[in-house]
Amino acid sequence: MPPTIQIFDTTLRDGTQGEKVSFSAEDKFRIAKRLDEFGVHYIEGGWPGSNPKDMAFFDKAKRHNFHNAKIVAFGSTCRAGNAPQKDPNLRALIEAETPAVSVFGKSWLLHVTQALNITPEKNLEIISGSIEYLKENGKEVIYDAEHFFDGYKDNPDYALKTLFAAQNAGANVIVLCDTNGGTLTHEVEEIVKHVNKTVSSPIGIHAHNDAELAVANSLAAIRAGAVHVQGTINGYGERCGNANLCSIIPNLQIKLGYQCVSDSQLAQLSTLSKFVSELGNLTPDNKQPYVGKSAFAHKGGVHVSAIIKNEQTYEHIKPELVGNNRRVLVSDLSGKSNVSYKSEELGFEFDKKSVESAQIVQELKKLENEGYQFEAAEASFELLVKQITNKAPDFFKLEGFRVIMERNAIGESRSEATIKVRVNDQIELSAAEGNGPVHALDAALRRALCEFYPEISSMQLQDYKVRVLNEKDGTGAKVRVLIDSAKDGSSWGTVGVSENIIDASWKALSEGIIYFLMNQKSKPKKKTENNLADASTVSSPPA
Amino acid sequence: MPPTIQIFDTTLRDGTQGEKVSFSAEDKFRIAKRLDEFGVHYIEGGWPGSNPKDMAFFDKAKRHNFHNAKIVAFGSTCRAGNAPQKDPNLRALIEAETPAVSVFGKSWLLHVTQALNITPEKNLEIISGSIEYLKENGKEVIYDAEHFFDGYKDNPDYALKTLFAAQNAGANVIVLCDTNGGTLTHEVEEIVKHVNKTVSSPIGIHAHNDAELAVANSLAAIRAGAVHVQGTINGYGERCGNANLCSIIPNLQIKLGYQCVSDSQLAQLSTLSKFVSELGNLTPDNKQPYVGKSAFAHKGGVHVSAIIKNEQTYEHIKPELVGNNRRVLVSDLSGKSNVSYKSEELGFEFDKKSVESAQIVQELKKLENEGYQFEAAEASFELLVKQITNKAPDFFKLEGFRVIMERNAIGESRSEATIKVRVNDQIELSAAEGNGPVHALDAALRRALCEFYPEISSMQLQDYKVRVLNEKDGTGAKVRVLIDSAKDGSSWGTVGVSENIIDASWKALSEGIIYFLMNQKSKPKKKTENNLADASTVSSPPA
Repeated sequence: MPPTIQIFDTTLRDGTQGEKVSFSAEDKFRIAKRLDEFGVHYIEGGWPGSNPKDMAFFDKAKRHNFHNAKIVAFGSTCRAGNAPQKDPNLRALIEAETPAVSVFGKSWLLHVTQALNITPEKNLEIISGSIEYLKENGKEVIYDAEHFFDGYKDNPDYALKTLFAAQNAGANVIVLCDTNGGTLTHEVEEIVKHVNKTVSSPIGIHAHNDAELAVANSLAAIRAGAVHVQGTINGYGERCGNANLCSIIPNLQIKLGYQCVSDSQLAQLSTLSKFVSELGNLTPDNKQPYVGKSAFAHKGGVHVSAIIKNEQTYEHIKPELVGNNRRVLVSDLSGKSNVSYKSEELGFEFDKKSVESAQIVQELKKLENEGYQFEAAEASFELLVKQITNKAPDFFKLEGFRVIMERNAIGESRSEATIKVRVNDQIELSAAEGNGPVHALDAALRRALCEFYPEISSMQLQDYKVRVLNEKDGTGAKVRVLIDSAKDGSSWGTVGVSENIIDASWKALSEGIIYFLMNQKSKPKKKTENNLADASTVSSPPA
Repeated sequence: MPPTIQIFDTTLRDGTQGEKVSFSAEDKFRIAKRLDEFGVHYIEGGWPGSNPKDMAFFDKAKRHNFHNAKIVAFGSTCRAGNAPQKDPNLRALIEAETPAVSVFGKSWLLHVTQALNITPEKNLEIISGSIEYLKENGKEVIYDAEHFFDGYKDNPDYALKTLFAAQNAGANVIVLCDTNGGTLTHEVEEIVKHVNKTVSSPIGIHAHNDAELAVANSLAAIRAGAVHVQGTINGYGERCGNANLCSIIPNLQIKLGYQCVSDSQLAQLSTLSKFVSELGNLTPDNKQPYVGKSAFAHKGGVHVSAIIKNEQTYEHIKPELVGNNRRVLVSDLSGKSNVSYKSEELGFEFDKKSVESAQIVQELKKLENEGYQFEAAEASFELLVKQITNKAPDFFKLEGFRVIMERNAIGESRSEATIKVRVNDQIELSAAEGNGPVHALDAALRRALCEFYPEISSMQLQDYKVRVLNEKDGTGAKVRVLIDSAKDGSSWGTVGVSENIIDASWKALSEGIIYFLMNQKSKPKKKTENNLADASTVSSPPA
């Protein structure tokens, strides 16, 4: 059996300290259930003493049966003036009714004397008194030695004394925290080695990423004897974030031979990462190791032709081990092998020598020359291929649109779009306002089409990017618009290029909808009598 | 003297392999000048053999005098069938006329036999033949041993043989590349130690971030004897990115006592990071270590009060060492020093205690909150200051504009703008078409103003960038428009932010013109009789 490392997830507690990271109690509960399925051993849910949202989470959690994970409540050791049994924070920890609790105490004399303003001895009493009280109340206790590495570098004897206090009080695991995140990897290795020889309790590691070393530091601590690792999904957390479990777990399990979760659970890692970023409404980091959209994306032609021969040539692991997949980007650096790989992936049989294949390559080169880029716009690429191979259905035809934007002397502005589309033999004219011309056009288009394809209301626009191509041409320059559309967590990208930003947006907008309808195998509905009467009137703007 | 580490920047070459990373030749040149000022030792500019954009960059670069950095052209060793002097790729390297070149060769038998399909001996000949030829042509040669770590783990003897071939051919430095990015830190340390004992050439490290270990691996290699480190600004690069120089340099210089750049250059790091992401139109990563907006941000409560007592309590370094600053959310204390920092950077002098300075701080905070950024828009910042201090003359007043954009069923589109401005007591109404709505508005504005300020025809719009701020809001998102205007080689930047791209463009456009008129000390001309007769007619579109 390979050695097991305990995975302690603090996405719901330390992760929420990150700027812009915020979860409702319901979000937290959904994430906890996913973390449990994924197989982490501990889920730190929040600080019950600090806010009602966290208390609501613990209320929900205690009525749910988790299969793999223990829910953990987090809090401080008791305040200097309080007896442990009278300390409101320790009481809140017990009232959270979790099987395990984590409490933090000070290891660095600087904090003891300057922040807490107490004697070094008093600090040791606080640590042992708090842990003893929690143990007496039947809790598994995870002790977080805050600022341990800074404390150890400042005064190793005192830092170790704080650990002995925790050990003797019965802490189940002692977690060495690099709270400020500035410790270097070789320092972590040396210090953990020494602590592990000196202290008999199991040792854990809690790293922050301020020197971009949190993952390396976590691995170094484990190689030096730690058996418990704390971190967050996607590395969310205060300042530069916490140690990223999405990198630590595959490094431990695929590369170092430790056991953390089962192999089939590990294959859920990419989905878990996306799930957490979606619930947090945080833009996923495409270049995130292991789980990011670009983690196994290949752009250069040389790389692609090598990958086709042997995937090991440019991939450090098989992407499916972490539930990710290979992507071959179709870009101006690419040749025929990229295009044929990509089309096969999309389910086209691509005979490299066929007439159609030559046409696709030719069209692609022409478009790339005009400034198109398909690497983030697979949906537009698929539509292009289907158009050339006559496999693209016609969902609607644009008869025309007009966008008007006005600004007056006092700086008020107004944007309005009218649009006319034809679906089979029926015409729809609609209008909408928006907070800018593209927004108005988007609203008018959806308004016109939802008569025929009501399913459109279930897809959203998720991301809108504009890039000026030949910037030197000033306001006459070409722009490339990239749009990501989404439904239920799956998303697709489309692209438009024009000297006119509204034309470019139109292309990306309309292709996003066409791609959606194609995948839904949509059929247009007949307009009702009622609707027919409206056909030539102008709809009112959306709320 | 602390030991020096050579910094080799490959943002312009390997960085552009990153998904969505793309720079024009002009962008590349501007970035190279900034990298040079920052003090890197080598700037790898591109692959001259691979595309005309890179060749255009080398053309510009050779006519510029760089102070700190050597420009490097990158390419492959020669093809198996070619003699070095007949190899088009090696010839392109020489024609780039850079003092140094980097060439990559194979270290891993898997690639030699499966990708190149040649014998191990032939591969050694290719390496030594290519390097000898480049040395004969007077180049400093940086040899990139591609896939070195994977090759070494597979067959250490052969991997070392490839290094000896490079060493004996005269390579100035041999760079060990973790091309697939999957090597662990302790493996890097052991392997580099061994290589450094075995090979006499100076050793470099080139790491990728696929296991989230690129920074740690670079530091481990240097501690094991490497003296040259390759990476990119912000870690841009293929898949999960290259080793991030924005973390490596401060780790080396602040924490490990090596010398990379001067201390005052190091204090430019955060600005450099932002500059590169702005030019690349890439969203900056707020939680990026050292240089990110959140890297020294403290949420309220315990941390803040501790920080006020002693900043060391929750900061691993002083943020000003890397040109970043502390952000204590809900604090008015930091604002003024921010502004004086920024204005000093832009060359203004402020009396920190004046009423006006407080007003400027307040206005700036409000604008930054709305998404304004003045780093690349000094002219807008200067106008803001002059408006608050009542030093900004009124050149014209906008009475209103209207922009119309139409598209018909066959896909033809037309953009037209009408504008009405007042100069003193005179009104001018004009109209123009353009190839997009912003272009039309720009043309109409110039047309309206050139009656009064004919000097406007001597300034041009040089650069137009659009960035979507809150991408999740789709087409309703806010955009920031950056415009660079120029006259006779000197240029100035202006900025506008709005949910409406035309409003944002209007602000940046009009400020670009106002700034120009202010610096020209322009006075409006009276309209001639002839012109007056035209006032209400519509001008024809520009050529």
